[in-house]
Amino acid sequence: MIIDIFRATSTITAALDNGAASVIPVASVHACVELGEQIANSVTGGERDGKIAEGLKHGNSPLEYPRSFIAGKKLILTTTNGTRLLHMIKDSNDIIIGSFLNLTAVSNYLVRDGKPVLLACASWKDRFNLEDTLFAGAVATRLSDRFTINCDSARAAKGLYSLTGGKDYLEFLKDSSHYNRLSGYGLVEDMKYCVTPDLHPVVPILRDGEIVVA
Amino acid sequence: MIIDIFRATSTITAALDNGAASVIPVASVHACVELGEQIANSVTGGERDGKIAEGLKHGNSPLEYPRSFIAGKKLILTTTNGTRLLHMIKDSNDIIIGSFLNLTAVSNYLVRDGKPVLLACASWKDRFNLEDTLFAGAVATRLSDRFTINCDSARAAKGLYSLTGGKDYLEFLKDSSHYNRLSGYGLVEDMKYCVTPDLHPVVPILRDGEIVVA
Repeated sequence: MIIDIFRATSTITAALDNGAASVIPVASVHACVELGEQIANSVTGGERDGKIAEGLKHGNSPLEYPRSFIAGKKLILTTTNGTRLLHMIKDSNDIIIGSFLNLTAVSNYLVRDGKPVLLACASWKDRFNLEDTLFAGAVATRLSDRFTINCDSARAAKGLYSLTGGKDYLEFLKDSSHYNRLSGYGLVEDMKYCVTPDLHPVVPILRDGEIVVA
Repeated sequence: MIIDIFRATSTITAALDNGAASVIPVASVHACVELGEQIANSVTGGERDGKIAEGLKHGNSPLEYPRSFIAGKKLILTTTNGTRLLHMIKDSNDIIIGSFLNLTAVSNYLVRDGKPVLLACASWKDRFNLEDTLFAGAVATRLSDRFTINCDSARAAKGLYSLTGGKDYLEFLKDSSHYNRLSGYGLVEDMKYCVTPDLHPVVPILRDGEIVVA
């Protein structure tokens, strides 16, 4: 499972639940623009360093993709960290997309599926970040009755998650690098939205290069 | 500061407090043997995968280096992770060696010193581990009044440390990869020793390739 809470995997989850036909993750802005010209009824979106990338029409905020705008369209998305990670592990089977917006849905899916799980946190430019690990801890906690956890990073993520008491995630994240960076861009409402559990209960899965509802 | 709780930095701290003239970290078993033949009054020690490395006389346990044995001698040490990390950052200034055995001593040293601090966890074969992060959290907690922490991994380490209530570290670490591995080698007493706070209140520092008491 790919995790990039602020904001790629939250945006993907929201767009799909709001009726997007699919989300196509691409690594570069160039590829995003090019694909946007080729695919009918598509929307190009993405960010670099937290802002709409030059040449793209839309950004990487779940709030930009309401049903009234995105339903029936393909969203071609490039982000700083999330889509890069997606490309890194693209040869794995069964890549699903997790965010607080679909926490229960993806956790239940993994339990039902029963296969070994890798929680892949996108991080920020190869550095650990708090919000992706917090979400990984939320999932690991929900999975721990049914799976054996034999990995110190998953144990640590569970421990971190326990500090929140299972709620008030944004409060917990106020002292974090991403909160500081994104609030500087005026994106507090975005972050509030991104940490709202189960607002978009879909399970996005990668199939043949496109992310669709499982 | 270098951190490799199980067991390189604990062994270095114990050996120096027990009167070792210095500890010379080397990356390979070969270099360890060779240097041991060149340096008078030296002891070669080290491990690979938790066991005494072939060709060396001693292992990587703090219990192997009591005052009666190590006082006045130079310990030439190679370990799986700790000395490798030491070599990776060998061009930094002021490399000190931290472990629970000298937790208060190194924390006080860093506060007095006042310079920016990097807590470098050795980990296990490039993977996150719980015990080094727990110790980093203990130090970050002690430093947080006097330093600005602007790093999610240090914040997470502090959070993890808070889960222990500042005590019973081994209990907290019983569900960890290293505890499982080392207890399989019969090294529970070693680990108990390594998580005892302030048993060896010295500040080991790297000077010209040798670790000595600051």
